[in-house]
Amino acid sequence: MNKYTIGIDFGTLSGRAVLVDVITGEEVADSVYNYPHAVMDESLPDGTPLGVDWALQDPQDYLEVYYHTIPELLKISGVAPEDIIGIGIDFTACTFMPIKRDGTPLCFLEEFRANPHAYVKLWRHHAAQDKANQLNQIAYERGEKWISRYGGKISSEWEVPKVWQILDEAPEIYQATDCFIEGADWAVWALTGKLSRNTCTAGYKGIWHNQEGYPSKEFFKALDPRLENYVEEKLNYPMVQLGTKVGGLTAEMAAKTGLLEGTAVAAGNVDAHVTVPALKITGSGKMLAIIGTSTCHILLGDSEESVPGMCGVVEGGVYPGFYGYEAGQSCVGDHFAWFTENCCPAEYKDQAEKEGKDIHVFLTEKAEKLAAGESGLVALDWWNGNRSVLVDVDLTGMILGMTLATRPEEIYRALIEATAFGTRKIIDAFNENGVPVTEFYASGGISKKNPLMMQIYADVIGLPIHIAGSAQGPALGSAIFAAVAAGKAAGGYDDVFAAANVMGKLDDRIYIPDPENQAIYEKLYAEYSILHDYFGRGQNDAMKRLKQIKKDVKERQQQ
Amino acid sequence: MNKYTIGIDFGTLSGRAVLVDVITGEEVADSVYNYPHAVMDESLPDGTPLGVDWALQDPQDYLEVYYHTIPELLKISGVAPEDIIGIGIDFTACTFMPIKRDGTPLCFLEEFRANPHAYVKLWRHHAAQDKANQLNQIAYERGEKWISRYGGKISSEWEVPKVWQILDEAPEIYQATDCFIEGADWAVWALTGKLSRNTCTAGYKGIWHNQEGYPSKEFFKALDPRLENYVEEKLNYPMVQLGTKVGGLTAEMAAKTGLLEGTAVAAGNVDAHVTVPALKITGSGKMLAIIGTSTCHILLGDSEESVPGMCGVVEGGVYPGFYGYEAGQSCVGDHFAWFTENCCPAEYKDQAEKEGKDIHVFLTEKAEKLAAGESGLVALDWWNGNRSVLVDVDLTGMILGMTLATRPEEIYRALIEATAFGTRKIIDAFNENGVPVTEFYASGGISKKNPLMMQIYADVIGLPIHIAGSAQGPALGSAIFAAVAAGKAAGGYDDVFAAANVMGKLDDRIYIPDPENQAIYEKLYAEYSILHDYFGRGQNDAMKRLKQIKKDVKERQQQ
Repeated sequence: MNKYTIGIDFGTLSGRAVLVDVITGEEVADSVYNYPHAVMDESLPDGTPLGVDWALQDPQDYLEVYYHTIPELLKISGVAPEDIIGIGIDFTACTFMPIKRDGTPLCFLEEFRANPHAYVKLWRHHAAQDKANQLNQIAYERGEKWISRYGGKISSEWEVPKVWQILDEAPEIYQATDCFIEGADWAVWALTGKLSRNTCTAGYKGIWHNQEGYPSKEFFKALDPRLENYVEEKLNYPMVQLGTKVGGLTAEMAAKTGLLEGTAVAAGNVDAHVTVPALKITGSGKMLAIIGTSTCHILLGDSEESVPGMCGVVEGGVYPGFYGYEAGQSCVGDHFAWFTENCCPAEYKDQAEKEGKDIHVFLTEKAEKLAAGESGLVALDWWNGNRSVLVDVDLTGMILGMTLATRPEEIYRALIEATAFGTRKIIDAFNENGVPVTEFYASGGISKKNPLMMQIYADVIGLPIHIAGSAQGPALGSAIFAAVAAGKAAGGYDDVFAAANVMGKLDDRIYIPDPENQAIYEKLYAEYSILHDYFGRGQNDAMKRLKQIKKDVKERQQQ
Repeated sequence: MNKYTIGIDFGTLSGRAVLVDVITGEEVADSVYNYPHAVMDESLPDGTPLGVDWALQDPQDYLEVYYHTIPELLKISGVAPEDIIGIGIDFTACTFMPIKRDGTPLCFLEEFRANPHAYVKLWRHHAAQDKANQLNQIAYERGEKWISRYGGKISSEWEVPKVWQILDEAPEIYQATDCFIEGADWAVWALTGKLSRNTCTAGYKGIWHNQEGYPSKEFFKALDPRLENYVEEKLNYPMVQLGTKVGGLTAEMAAKTGLLEGTAVAAGNVDAHVTVPALKITGSGKMLAIIGTSTCHILLGDSEESVPGMCGVVEGGVYPGFYGYEAGQSCVGDHFAWFTENCCPAEYKDQAEKEGKDIHVFLTEKAEKLAAGESGLVALDWWNGNRSVLVDVDLTGMILGMTLATRPEEIYRALIEATAFGTRKIIDAFNENGVPVTEFYASGGISKKNPLMMQIYADVIGLPIHIAGSAQGPALGSAIFAAVAAGKAAGGYDDVFAAANVMGKLDDRIYIPDPENQAIYEKLYAEYSILHDYFGRGQNDAMKRLKQIKKDVKERQQQ
């Protein structure tokens, strides 16, 4: 009898579960549950208003995902609970919350129900930017070496700025909190009743290092004297390596889901990082791009290097024994969505409807007929700032080369090319700083739906592009880690590499660079690079000055 | 009994005639006739194919304008022919043709009917670019001083490159030509039977100077030995000042139009330049912008200065006693047309249709709600190259500052602002080179239809903007010159200034700069200026390199 594991991917708006055959890697069932509260960015359910740039979630929604999806997997597949040997989960990050020592979220307590700071702060809660700015300044002033592991900058999306915001704005919540915890780790607690802190989120989002641990008490004290003992007081539960079994399913959760009590539960993980084994990537040099509204890049390296402008490097952050590097592009799918919403002419929309085609398919078909370099356009892909290499949220988009003959599909293609050039900048930065990139893998909906884009990426970066075999990369990755947590004796695996090789999947399609296009894109990339440095490295800060003018105008309007 | 004159504006696609009361300036009737052959840019009517960038016209169409519009003016107005004391015409330029000494166009002769070089080369015939390039190089090598009167560059649209192309490609036509003549002057010949060469087109398009005459025989010989005696051989008919009466209407034309034989006919003129009196402009410092698909600027000065990047300066080129300066922007209305055709989303088009609004009106209403600087965008208005200041057809458009929140009306407004910044660059160049601009006047459809654009222009250039009172600026200007040609004794005027003051018209609306907006636009103009110089003056020739890449790709495709 085959054995199975369950992987559950907690996304921004829903949880997606998949049931995977441990021997064949077949995904035998999947189930999605949308969070009833989705993202709360204007008010709490009771009407309590939220500030600008806030983004909260209700942890009850995560529990509901378990209650709905796991029974459905069992029902669809007909697989017996005793053949399901493990559960793994992955989460958005840093998605962070205050809890009591017994695991209860503060927002579940009546006394804090109306306090926004008691809820989960979603990864894209951006209201702690001031704190991040102060933190970075203090880190530089103190000469903190760990900042170089994060490309020189701690993001406002990460743990410490978020905690500091709570301390500052709601000291009663900080006070009442026994532990702060990542959503990933809380979701594991919900299954096992055990508190654990996975090395992936701790490393990438919590300034933790495998050898050096956390920043010093002096650093935390410099932020705020009340934070001096933050680590001891609020992170007082064990660290666990990825793939570790944290515990077994509780009786209560077994009853609610239909699984057996004691089913192995793996350490929590992050949605991007967990996808690596889903593409059979088991060694250094292979960059994985998870392409969605934005793109996240994960790369394994054999040593810890300082790569300027990267999101982070964490020993064991993806796999034990490797240094996991992360980088990102803030605006990829968002780019194309913006274009179709704001720049796509009526006749194209009408024609696409007539042909029964999605507008992106329609535009891509038109863009496909163009040759590389034919449009005479080049764009900077900074509609949403620049996340890696330049690490600057205040940069904006640019497009150059328009004539009266420029057509919409040419602009659309230029935006695709711009994201490819942005990817190449990241690859170049790794290559130039001792972390070689020798292969390229792509995952996420766009990578499977848009062959033109993948071919352009291959032509621009000059590497073949391998595509994920599964449409559920993160959930499959979680199921792989679940098989490792279950262990070989139970029918799983003793290490993640063996599990990845069996359960991971690649598409048959590989996009091979076309030498003629490569030569043209080499020239266009040279133009992109000049503009990238001119506008991005301070020669002409027009984008920032224009943002400032815009801000001044809006402030004056509000007076 | 009031007296009247007729002004006829020969445009690119039609001729427009207006009958004007000489005393009140009232436009009592108007009539339009579309050229049956329009612009021939692919083939002659007999199927003879034309080359790339060719643009021809058939002079028979100009005659048809007289035959159709003048009788219609008489019919509509009921004005008696004896009360019509003069006719004036203006034309596109340089629109140039080969004729026999008796005025017959070569293309009217059976033997040349199938020869494209026998036809009128329209102003936008661009197939003589090689000749223009060679001409400019030779002029520089020889240190020809006259080139500074043309901003340092003779355009391929002008007379000598066009004639040289004929000589080179169709020496039999050059040989058979008794005279080369501007369309404006041929149209006057058609009315009077007299050959004349107006000082406006001769100056701006024919490298003629009031004191110095034409370039030397040595220069023409350096172009091609066969051109050595070009002026003597092919321009052997009298020069006439603007406002001069060339002659009276012929008996044949009187019969065909219903006017009296002998009716005074004024010297030919150019559509832009002739508009100056239509706005009562009679002195130096007042810049007139004729805003259409492109914009032409005319400015009177008291001295002959060398203004880098201007189209030209001609003594008496607009009025006797003044130096007439010309500059231009290649892409104004074209900009907005491009935007609505290529970038305007379906929902906007649908909404505009629902509200029964022209899409430009709809977009303008949305753009009007934005404050200056609110979009965070800045654009370079070079979708069709740069005609003045930089004088470079190979420059292209650029837009900067986009975010995911950028909306179509913000881009639309940024394009309007870019054309305003382009206008200010031209004004600055005149001010910095001894030709002060103290007032600003606007004419053309857009100036009357788009108050937002005019207000932005006022705010950007920091001068009040006066608007033409007549929608038919050029035709009214021609009617004013007709009244001067007729003379005071016949009920007209003895000088154009008196005529302009009576017959010219201004709109009641004046756009006054808003100091708050001015302050913001000062900042945006500073950004525009940095980008203008960076991309336009050789610091980063990305636009040209991208054009070259595009050209290479297209050439390879054609192989």
